[in-house]
Amino acid sequence: MKSLPKIETCFSPSLLHLYDMKNSIVVIIDVFRATSTIAAALHNGAKAIIPIDSVDACIALGTQLPNSITAGERDGKVAPGLQYGNSPLEYSPDFIKDKTLLLTTTNGTRLLHMCNDASEIITGSFLNLGAVCDYLQHQQKDVLLACASWKDRYNLEDSLFAGAVYDSIGSHFEMNCDSTRAANQLYQSAKADLFHFIQDSSHFLRLSKFGLQYDMEYCCKINAHNVLVKYENEQLVVK
Amino acid sequence: MKSLPKIETCFSPSLLHLYDMKNSIVVIIDVFRATSTIAAALHNGAKAIIPIDSVDACIALGTQLPNSITAGERDGKVAPGLQYGNSPLEYSPDFIKDKTLLLTTTNGTRLLHMCNDASEIITGSFLNLGAVCDYLQHQQKDVLLACASWKDRYNLEDSLFAGAVYDSIGSHFEMNCDSTRAANQLYQSAKADLFHFIQDSSHFLRLSKFGLQYDMEYCCKINAHNVLVKYENEQLVVK
Repeated sequence: MKSLPKIETCFSPSLLHLYDMKNSIVVIIDVFRATSTIAAALHNGAKAIIPIDSVDACIALGTQLPNSITAGERDGKVAPGLQYGNSPLEYSPDFIKDKTLLLTTTNGTRLLHMCNDASEIITGSFLNLGAVCDYLQHQQKDVLLACASWKDRYNLEDSLFAGAVYDSIGSHFEMNCDSTRAANQLYQSAKADLFHFIQDSSHFLRLSKFGLQYDMEYCCKINAHNVLVKYENEQLVVK
Repeated sequence: MKSLPKIETCFSPSLLHLYDMKNSIVVIIDVFRATSTIAAALHNGAKAIIPIDSVDACIALGTQLPNSITAGERDGKVAPGLQYGNSPLEYSPDFIKDKTLLLTTTNGTRLLHMCNDASEIITGSFLNLGAVCDYLQHQQKDVLLACASWKDRYNLEDSLFAGAVYDSIGSHFEMNCDSTRAANQLYQSAKADLFHFIQDSSHFLRLSKFGLQYDMEYCCKINAHNVLVKYENEQLVVK
Protein backbone atom coordinates (compact mmCIF):
# COMPACT_ATOMS: atom_id res chain seq x y z
CA MET A 1 0.00 0.00 0.00
CA LYS A 2 1.34 3.41 -0.91
CA SER A 3 2.03 5.48 2.17
CA LEU A 4 0.15 8.73 2.61
CA PRO A 5 1.89 12.07 2.22
CA LYS A 6 2.44 13.89 5.49
CA ILE A 7 0.98 17.14 6.71
CA GLU A 8 2.61 19.49 9.22
CA THR A 9 2.02 22.96 10.60
CA CYS A 10 4.63 25.61 11.41
CA PHE A 11 3.36 28.28 13.82
CA SER A 12 5.98 30.96 13.16
CA PRO A 13 8.69 31.95 10.65
CA SER A 14 11.11 31.59 13.59
CA LEU A 15 10.36 27.85 13.61
CA LEU A 16 10.68 27.33 9.87
CA HIS A 17 14.21 25.93 10.13
CA LEU A 18 12.75 22.86 11.87
CA TYR A 19 10.93 21.74 8.73
CA ASP A 20 12.26 20.26 5.52
CA MET A 21 10.23 21.82 2.72
CA LYS A 22 12.22 20.64 -0.32
CA ASN A 23 9.62 18.10 -1.36
CA SER A 24 6.60 19.86 0.10
CA ILE A 25 3.85 22.15 -0.99
CA VAL A 26 4.05 25.09 1.39
CA VAL A 27 0.83 26.94 2.10
CA ILE A 28 1.55 30.53 3.16
CA ILE A 29 -1.11 31.62 5.66
CA ASP A 30 -1.61 35.25 6.64
CA VAL A 31 -5.34 35.51 7.29
CA PHE A 32 -5.19 39.11 8.65
CA ARG A 33 -4.71 40.11 5.90
CA ALA A 34 -2.12 39.46 3.18
CA THR A 35 -3.33 36.11 1.88
CA SER A 36 -6.97 37.23 2.13
CA THR A 37 -6.16 40.33 0.07
CA ILE A 38 -4.25 38.16 -2.41
CA ALA A 39 -7.23 35.81 -2.90
CA ALA A 40 -9.67 38.69 -3.29
CA ALA A 41 -7.57 40.72 -5.73
CA LEU A 42 -6.80 37.73 -7.97
CA HIS A 43 -10.38 36.47 -7.89
CA ASN A 44 -11.52 39.96 -8.85
CA GLY A 45 -9.32 39.95 -11.94
CA ALA A 46 -5.85 41.16 -10.99
CA LYS A 47 -3.37 39.92 -13.59
CA ALA A 48 -0.79 39.02 -10.97
CA ILE A 49 0.52 40.01 -7.55
CA ILE A 50 4.21 40.55 -6.95
CA PRO A 51 5.11 40.17 -3.26
CA ILE A 52 7.93 42.52 -2.31
CA ASP A 53 9.94 42.69 0.92
CA SER A 54 10.55 46.41 1.34
CA VAL A 55 8.39 49.49 0.91
CA ASP A 56 11.17 51.23 -1.05
CA ALA A 57 11.51 48.37 -3.53
CA CYS A 58 7.74 48.34 -3.93
CA ILE A 59 7.64 52.06 -4.76
CA ALA A 60 10.60 51.72 -7.14
CA LEU A 61 9.01 48.87 -9.10
CA GLY A 62 5.73 50.78 -9.22
CA THR A 63 7.40 53.57 -11.20
CA GLN A 64 8.66 51.06 -13.77
CA LEU A 65 5.83 48.58 -14.31
CA PRO A 66 2.90 49.78 -16.45
CA ASN A 67 -0.62 49.29 -15.13
CA SER A 68 0.60 48.42 -11.62
CA ILE A 69 -0.50 49.47 -8.16
CA THR A 70 1.72 49.71 -5.10
CA ALA A 71 0.07 48.45 -1.95
CA GLY A 72 0.79 47.17 1.51
CA GLU A 73 1.12 47.90 5.17
CA ARG A 74 3.49 48.15 8.08
CA ASP A 75 2.12 47.47 11.56
CA GLY A 76 -1.40 47.20 10.14
CA LYS A 77 -1.49 50.63 8.45
CA VAL A 78 -0.93 51.73 4.83
CA ALA A 79 2.80 52.38 4.61
CA PRO A 80 3.77 55.96 3.60
CA GLY A 81 4.50 56.20 -0.14
CA LEU A 82 2.23 53.29 -1.12
CA GLN A 83 -1.02 53.89 -3.00
CA TYR A 84 -3.25 51.31 -1.36
CA GLY A 85 -3.48 49.17 1.75
CA ASN A 86 -3.75 45.52 2.61
CA SER A 87 -7.51 45.11 2.65
CA PRO A 88 -9.41 42.55 0.55
CA LEU A 89 -12.17 45.14 0.25
CA GLU A 90 -10.03 47.66 -1.62
CA TYR A 91 -9.70 45.53 -4.74
CA SER A 92 -13.09 45.40 -6.44
CA PRO A 93 -13.29 43.96 -10.00
CA ASP A 94 -13.77 47.33 -11.73
CA PHE A 95 -10.67 48.67 -10.02
CA ILE A 96 -8.22 45.77 -10.05
CA LYS A 97 -9.06 43.97 -13.32
CA ASP A 98 -5.94 43.30 -15.43
CA LYS A 99 -3.70 45.32 -13.13
CA THR A 100 -0.58 44.05 -11.38
CA LEU A 101 -0.56 44.49 -7.61
CA LEU A 102 2.84 45.14 -6.02
CA LEU A 103 2.30 44.08 -2.40
CA THR A 104 4.48 44.44 0.69
CA THR A 105 3.22 43.44 4.14
CA THR A 106 4.63 43.00 7.66
CA ASN A 107 4.47 39.23 7.86
CA GLY A 108 3.07 37.45 4.81
CA THR A 109 5.39 38.58 2.04
CA ARG A 110 8.42 38.09 4.28
CA LEU A 111 7.44 34.48 5.03
CA LEU A 112 6.85 33.78 1.36
CA HIS A 113 10.40 34.77 0.54
CA MET A 114 11.69 32.54 3.36
CA CYS A 115 10.17 29.50 1.61
CA ASN A 116 12.16 29.58 -1.61
CA ASP A 117 13.37 26.01 -0.98
CA ALA A 118 9.84 24.63 -1.18
CA SER A 119 8.79 22.33 -3.99
CA GLU A 120 5.71 24.54 -4.55
CA ILE A 121 4.20 27.55 -2.82
CA ILE A 122 0.51 28.40 -2.67
CA THR A 123 -1.30 30.92 -0.46
CA GLY A 124 -4.24 30.18 1.82
CA SER A 125 -6.98 32.14 3.56
CA PHE A 126 -10.55 31.39 4.57
CA LEU A 127 -11.60 33.23 1.39
CA ASN A 128 -10.07 30.43 -0.70
CA LEU A 129 -10.08 27.51 1.74
CA GLY A 130 -11.95 25.18 -0.62
CA ALA A 131 -9.58 25.71 -3.55
CA VAL A 132 -6.56 25.14 -1.29
CA CYS A 133 -7.99 21.92 0.13
CA ASP A 134 -9.05 20.53 -3.26
CA TYR A 135 -5.59 21.15 -4.64
CA LEU A 136 -3.68 19.66 -1.70
CA GLN A 137 -5.88 16.60 -1.58
CA HIS A 138 -5.14 15.72 -5.19
CA GLN A 139 -1.39 16.36 -5.38
CA GLN A 140 -0.25 13.42 -3.22
CA LYS A 141 2.64 15.49 -1.90
CA ASP A 142 3.79 16.42 1.59
CA VAL A 143 2.25 19.64 2.90
CA LEU A 144 3.59 22.30 5.25
CA LEU A 145 1.01 24.76 6.54
CA ALA A 146 3.15 27.83 7.26
CA CYS A 147 1.64 30.51 9.50
CA ALA A 148 2.93 34.04 8.96
CA SER A 149 2.09 34.88 12.59
CA TRP A 150 2.60 38.44 13.92
CA LYS A 151 6.26 39.44 13.97
CA ASP A 152 7.11 35.80 14.65
CA ARG A 153 4.66 35.43 17.51
CA TYR A 154 2.07 32.66 17.29
CA ASN A 155 -1.34 33.96 16.30
CA LEU A 156 -4.81 32.49 16.54
CA GLU A 157 -6.21 33.26 13.10
CA ASP A 158 -3.45 31.61 11.08
CA SER A 159 -3.47 28.46 13.20
CA LEU A 160 -7.27 28.36 12.92
CA PHE A 161 -6.89 28.28 9.16
CA ALA A 162 -4.34 25.46 9.46
CA GLY A 163 -6.89 23.63 11.60
CA ALA A 164 -9.59 24.22 8.98
CA VAL A 165 -7.41 22.67 6.29
CA TYR A 166 -6.69 19.64 8.47
CA ASP A 167 -10.37 19.33 9.38
CA SER A 168 -11.22 19.18 5.68
CA ILE A 169 -8.51 16.93 4.22
CA GLY A 170 -6.58 15.45 7.17
CA SER A 171 -7.82 11.93 6.47
CA HIS A 172 -5.84 11.92 3.21
CA PHE A 173 -2.56 12.54 5.03
CA GLU A 174 -0.30 10.98 7.62
CA MET A 175 -0.06 13.33 10.59
CA ASN A 176 2.20 13.22 13.64
CA CYS A 177 2.60 16.89 14.40
CA ASP A 178 1.43 18.48 17.66
CA SER A 179 1.05 21.89 16.01
CA THR A 180 -1.44 20.38 13.58
CA ARG A 181 -3.24 18.57 16.42
CA ALA A 182 -3.53 21.81 18.41
CA ALA A 183 -4.64 23.81 15.36
CA ASN A 184 -7.30 21.22 14.58
CA GLN A 185 -8.52 21.17 18.19
CA LEU A 186 -8.71 24.96 18.19
CA TYR A 187 -10.69 24.93 14.95
CA GLN A 188 -13.16 22.42 16.38
CA SER A 189 -13.82 24.89 19.22
CA ALA A 190 -14.13 27.83 16.81
CA LYS A 191 -15.82 26.58 13.68
CA ALA A 192 -19.43 27.07 14.76
CA ASP A 193 -18.79 30.83 14.86
CA LEU A 194 -15.36 31.62 13.50
CA PHE A 195 -15.70 35.40 13.54
CA HIS A 196 -16.92 35.45 17.11
CA PHE A 197 -14.01 33.28 18.22
CA ILE A 198 -11.44 35.32 16.35
CA GLN A 199 -12.49 38.58 17.97
CA ASP A 200 -10.58 37.52 21.05
CA SER A 201 -7.18 37.59 19.35
CA SER A 202 -4.23 39.98 19.54
CA HIS A 203 -4.41 40.85 15.87
CA PHE A 204 -8.14 41.57 15.96
CA LEU A 205 -7.66 43.89 18.93
CA ARG A 206 -4.73 45.60 17.16
CA LEU A 207 -6.52 46.16 13.85
CA SER A 208 -9.79 47.12 15.51
CA LYS A 209 -8.07 50.28 16.73
CA PHE A 210 -7.77 51.30 13.06
CA GLY A 211 -11.48 50.63 12.45
CA LEU A 212 -10.83 47.43 10.51
CA GLN A 213 -13.44 45.17 12.15
CA TYR A 214 -15.39 44.72 8.94
CA ASP A 215 -12.21 43.90 7.09
CA MET A 216 -11.57 41.07 9.48
CA GLU A 217 -15.16 39.88 9.39
CA TYR A 218 -14.78 39.72 5.62
CA CYS A 219 -11.57 37.68 5.98
CA CYS A 220 -13.64 34.99 7.75
CA LYS A 221 -16.02 34.46 4.79
CA ILE A 222 -15.21 30.91 3.74
CA ASN A 223 -14.76 30.49 -0.03
CA ALA A 224 -15.83 34.06 -0.90
CA HIS A 225 -12.90 34.24 -3.36
CA ASN A 226 -12.31 30.59 -4.02
CA VAL A 227 -9.31 30.59 -6.34
CA LEU A 228 -6.11 28.57 -6.20
CA VAL A 229 -3.15 30.95 -5.91
CA LYS A 230 0.34 29.76 -6.83
CA TYR A 231 3.70 31.47 -6.55
CA GLU A 232 5.58 31.06 -9.82
CA ASN A 233 8.37 33.14 -11.34
CA GLU A 234 8.18 35.52 -8.38
CA GLN A 235 4.51 36.25 -9.02
CA LEU A 236 1.30 35.09 -7.42
CA VAL A 237 -1.18 33.98 -10.06
CA VAL A 238 -4.45 32.07 -10.31
CA LYS A 239 -4.11 28.45 -11.43
CA MET B 1 -5.93 51.42 40.30
CA LYS B 2 -2.77 49.39 40.10
CA SER B 3 -2.45 47.65 36.77
CA LEU B 4 -2.29 43.88 36.75
CA PRO B 5 0.93 42.05 35.92
CA LYS B 6 0.91 40.39 32.53
CA ILE B 7 1.06 36.72 31.64
CA GLU B 8 2.44 35.31 28.40
CA THR B 9 3.27 31.90 26.95
CA CYS B 10 6.25 30.97 24.78
CA PHE B 11 5.72 27.74 22.82
CA SER B 12 9.35 26.98 21.96
CA PRO B 13 12.92 27.91 22.94
CA SER B 14 13.26 29.12 19.32
CA LEU B 15 10.72 31.86 20.11
CA LEU B 16 12.26 32.95 23.40
CA HIS B 17 14.00 35.96 21.85
CA LEU B 18 10.56 37.52 21.29
CA TYR B 19 9.95 37.90 25.02
CA ASP B 20 11.50 40.26 27.53
CA MET B 21 12.03 38.26 30.71
CA LYS B 22 14.15 40.67 32.73
CA ASN B 23 11.32 41.57 35.11
CA SER B 24 9.42 38.30 34.84
CA ILE B 25 9.08 35.07 36.68
CA VAL B 26 9.79 32.40 34.08
CA VAL B 27 8.10 29.04 34.56
CA ILE B 28 10.10 26.28 32.84
CA ILE B 29 7.65 23.63 31.58
CA ASP B 30 8.80 20.20 30.43
CA VAL B 31 5.92 17.94 31.40
CA PHE B 32 7.37 14.83 29.67
CA ARG B 33 9.43 14.58 31.81
CA ALA B 34 12.13 16.85 33.24
CA THR B 35 10.01 19.20 35.32
CA SER B 36 7.82 16.29 36.50
CA THR B 37 10.92 14.39 37.61
CA ILE B 38 12.23 17.54 39.32
CA ALA B 39 8.99 18.00 41.31
CA ALA B 40 8.89 14.32 42.31
CA ALA B 41 12.55 14.06 43.36
CA LEU B 42 12.47 17.26 45.42
CA HIS B 43 9.14 16.40 47.02
CA ASN B 44 10.56 13.00 47.93
CA GLY B 45 13.46 14.57 49.77
CA ALA B 46 16.26 15.28 47.29
CA LYS B 47 18.51 17.97 48.76
CA ALA B 48 18.84 19.76 45.41
CA ILE B 49 18.87 19.19 41.67
CA ILE B 50 21.62 20.60 39.51
CA PRO B 51 20.52 20.91 35.87
CA ILE B 52 23.43 20.33 33.52
CA ASP B 53 23.64 20.81 29.76
CA SER B 54 25.89 17.97 28.65
CA VAL B 55 26.11 14.30 29.56
CA ASP B 56 29.91 14.57 29.91
CA ALA B 57 29.69 17.48 32.36
CA CYS B 58 27.07 15.56 34.31
CA ILE B 59 29.33 12.50 34.63
CA ALA B 60 32.33 14.65 35.57
CA LEU B 61 30.48 16.46 38.35
CA GLY B 62 29.11 13.14 39.59
CA THR B 63 32.65 11.92 40.32
CA GLN B 64 33.34 15.03 42.42
CA LEU B 65 30.18 15.68 44.41
CA PRO B 66 29.55 13.41 47.43
CA ASN B 67 26.13 11.77 47.76
CA SER B 68 25.12 12.71 44.21
CA ILE B 69 23.39 10.80 41.43
CA THR B 70 23.88 11.38 37.72
CA ALA B 71 20.66 11.16 35.75
CA GLY B 72 19.05 12.16 32.50
CA GLU B 73 18.13 11.26 28.98
CA ARG B 74 18.78 11.93 25.35
CA ASP B 75 15.96 11.30 22.88
CA GLY B 76 13.82 9.86 25.68
CA LYS B 77 16.28 7.16 26.79
CA VAL B 78 18.81 7.01 29.66
CA ALA B 79 21.99 8.45 28.19
CA PRO B 80 25.02 6.10 28.26
CA GLY B 81 27.25 6.78 31.27
CA LEU B 82 24.47 8.13 33.49
CA GLN B 83 23.21 6.14 36.46
CA TYR B 84 19.50 6.91 36.26
CA GLY B 85 16.87 8.19 33.84
CA ASN B 86 14.39 11.00 33.63
CA SER B 87 11.38 9.33 35.24
CA PRO B 88 9.53 10.75 38.26
CA LEU B 89 8.98 7.14 39.37
CA GLU B 90 12.69 6.42 39.83
CA TYR B 91 13.10 8.76 42.75
CA SER B 92 11.26 7.28 45.73
CA PRO B 93 11.85 8.85 49.17
CA ASP B 94 14.02 6.01 50.51
CA PHE B 95 16.29 6.30 47.48
CA ILE B 96 16.58 10.03 46.86
CA LYS B 97 16.36 11.53 50.37
CA ASP B 98 19.20 14.02 51.04
CA LYS B 99 20.95 13.21 47.78
CA THR B 100 21.82 15.71 45.05
CA LEU B 101 20.49 14.86 41.59
CA LEU B 102 22.65 15.93 38.65
CA LEU B 103 20.17 16.06 35.78
CA THR B 104 20.66 16.50 32.05
CA THR B 105 17.74 16.23 29.59
CA THR B 106 17.07 16.89 25.91
CA ASN B 107 14.86 19.92 26.28
CA GLY B 108 14.16 21.09 29.82
CA THR B 109 17.64 21.72 31.20
CA ARG B 110 18.65 23.46 27.97
CA LEU B 111 15.70 25.87 28.17
CA LEU B 112 16.46 26.60 31.81
CA HIS B 113 19.94 27.76 30.91
CA MET B 114 18.51 29.96 28.13
CA CYS B 115 16.52 31.92 30.74
CA ASN B 116 19.39 33.33 32.77
CA ASP B 117 18.11 36.87 32.15
CA ALA B 118 14.89 36.20 34.00
CA SER B 119 14.09 37.91 37.26
CA GLU B 120 13.23 34.51 38.77
CA ILE B 121 12.97 30.96 37.47
CA ILE B 122 10.65 28.27 38.79
CA THR B 123 9.73 24.91 37.26
CA GLY B 124 6.23 23.68 36.53
CA SER B 125 4.51 20.36 35.89
CA PHE B 126 1.07 18.94 36.58
CA LEU B 127 2.62 17.27 39.65
CA ASN B 128 3.12 20.70 41.26
CA LEU B 129 0.53 22.83 39.43
CA GLY B 130 -1.08 24.10 42.63
CA ALA B 131 2.18 25.30 44.19
CA VAL B 132 3.14 27.07 40.96
CA CYS B 133 -0.22 28.83 40.70
CA ASP B 134 -0.29 29.88 44.36
CA TYR B 135 3.16 31.37 44.07
CA LEU B 136 2.52 33.24 40.81
CA GLN B 137 -0.77 34.63 42.03
CA HIS B 138 0.83 36.24 45.08
CA GLN B 139 4.00 37.69 43.57
CA GLN B 140 2.37 40.49 41.52
CA LYS B 141 5.03 40.11 38.86
CA ASP B 142 4.90 39.50 35.12
CA VAL B 143 4.93 35.81 34.18
CA LEU B 144 6.34 33.99 31.18
CA LEU B 145 5.19 30.39 30.78
CA ALA B 146 8.09 28.86 28.84
CA CYS B 147 7.46 25.53 27.14
CA ALA B 148 10.51 23.33 26.63
CA SER B 149 8.82 21.72 23.59
CA TRP B 150 10.51 18.84 21.73
CA LYS B 151 13.71 19.92 20.04
CA ASP B 152 12.11 23.34 19.53
CA ARG B 153 8.89 21.97 18.01
CA TYR B 154 5.63 22.96 19.69
CA ASN B 155 4.23 20.18 21.84
CA LEU B 156 0.80 19.53 23.29
CA GLU B 157 1.63 18.59 26.86
CA ASP B 158 3.64 21.71 27.72
CA SER B 159 1.07 24.07 26.24
CA LEU B 160 -1.68 22.17 28.11
CA PHE B 161 0.16 22.91 31.33
CA ALA B 162 0.41 26.60 30.36
CA GLY B 163 -3.34 26.50 29.73
CA ALA B 164 -3.92 24.90 33.14
CA VAL B 165 -2.00 27.71 34.85
CA TYR B 166 -3.99 30.35 32.98
CA ASP B 167 -7.25 28.54 33.76
CA SER B 168 -6.39 28.69 37.44
CA ILE B 169 -4.98 32.21 37.90
CA GLY B 170 -5.59 34.08 34.62
CA SER B 171 -8.08 36.47 36.23
CA HIS B 172 -5.26 37.95 38.32
CA PHE B 173 -3.28 38.94 35.22
CA GLU B 174 -3.55 41.10 32.15
CA MET B 175 -3.37 38.87 29.08
CA ASN B 176 -3.04 39.77 25.42
CA CYS B 177 -1.12 36.82 24.09
CA ASP B 178 -2.52 34.44 21.46
CA SER B 179 -0.30 31.60 22.66
CA THR B 180 -1.91 31.85 26.09
CA ARG B 181 -5.39 32.05 24.54
CA ALA B 182 -4.72 28.93 22.46
CA ALA B 183 -3.19 27.06 25.41
CA ASN B 184 -6.18 27.91 27.56
CA GLN B 185 -8.63 26.86 24.85
CA LEU B 186 -6.76 23.57 24.43
CA TYR B 187 -6.86 22.96 28.18
CA GLN B 188 -10.62 23.57 28.25
CA SER B 189 -10.98 20.79 25.66
CA ALA B 190 -8.64 18.48 27.59
CA LYS B 191 -9.22 19.04 31.26
CA ALA B 192 -12.07 16.58 31.74
CA ASP B 193 -9.65 13.75 30.89
CA LEU B 194 -6.14 15.07 30.58
CA PHE B 195 -4.38 11.73 30.19
CA HIS B 196 -6.77 10.56 27.50
CA PHE B 197 -6.26 13.79 25.55
CA ILE B 198 -2.49 13.70 25.89
CA GLN B 199 -2.24 10.19 24.45
CA ASP B 200 -2.68 11.70 21.02
CA SER B 201 0.57 13.67 21.10
CA SER B 202 3.92 13.19 19.38
CA HIS B 203 5.81 12.83 22.63
CA PHE B 204 3.41 10.24 24.04
CA LEU B 205 3.73 8.18 20.88
CA ARG B 206 7.53 8.52 20.98
CA LEU B 207 7.93 7.54 24.64
CA SER B 208 5.33 4.78 24.42
CA LYS B 209 7.74 2.89 22.20
CA PHE B 210 10.05 2.67 25.22
CA GLY B 211 7.23 1.36 27.43
CA LEU B 212 6.85 4.63 29.31
CA GLN B 213 3.04 4.92 29.22
CA TYR B 214 2.73 4.64 33.00
CA ASP B 215 5.41 7.30 33.42
CA MET B 216 3.36 9.69 31.36
CA GLU B 217 0.13 8.80 33.11
CA TYR B 218 1.92 9.61 36.36
CA CYS B 219 3.05 12.98 34.95
CA CYS B 220 -0.66 13.90 34.57
CA LYS B 221 -1.43 13.46 38.29
CA ILE B 222 -2.27 16.99 39.36
CA ASN B 223 -0.56 18.08 42.62
CA ALA B 224 0.91 14.64 43.38
CA HIS B 225 4.20 16.34 44.33
CA ASN B 226 2.97 19.80 45.15
CA VAL B 227 6.16 21.71 45.95
CA LEU B 228 7.38 25.07 44.71
CA VAL B 229 10.69 24.61 42.91
CA LYS B 230 13.00 27.58 42.41
CA TYR B 231 16.27 27.89 40.54
CA GLU B 232 18.81 29.68 42.72
CA ASN B 233 22.61 29.59 42.66
CA GLU B 234 22.50 27.11 39.77
CA GLN B 235 20.45 24.64 41.79
CA LEU B 236 16.78 23.70 41.86
CA VAL B 237 15.50 23.65 45.41
CA VAL B 238 12.18 23.54 47.27
CA LYS B 239 10.98 26.88 48.60
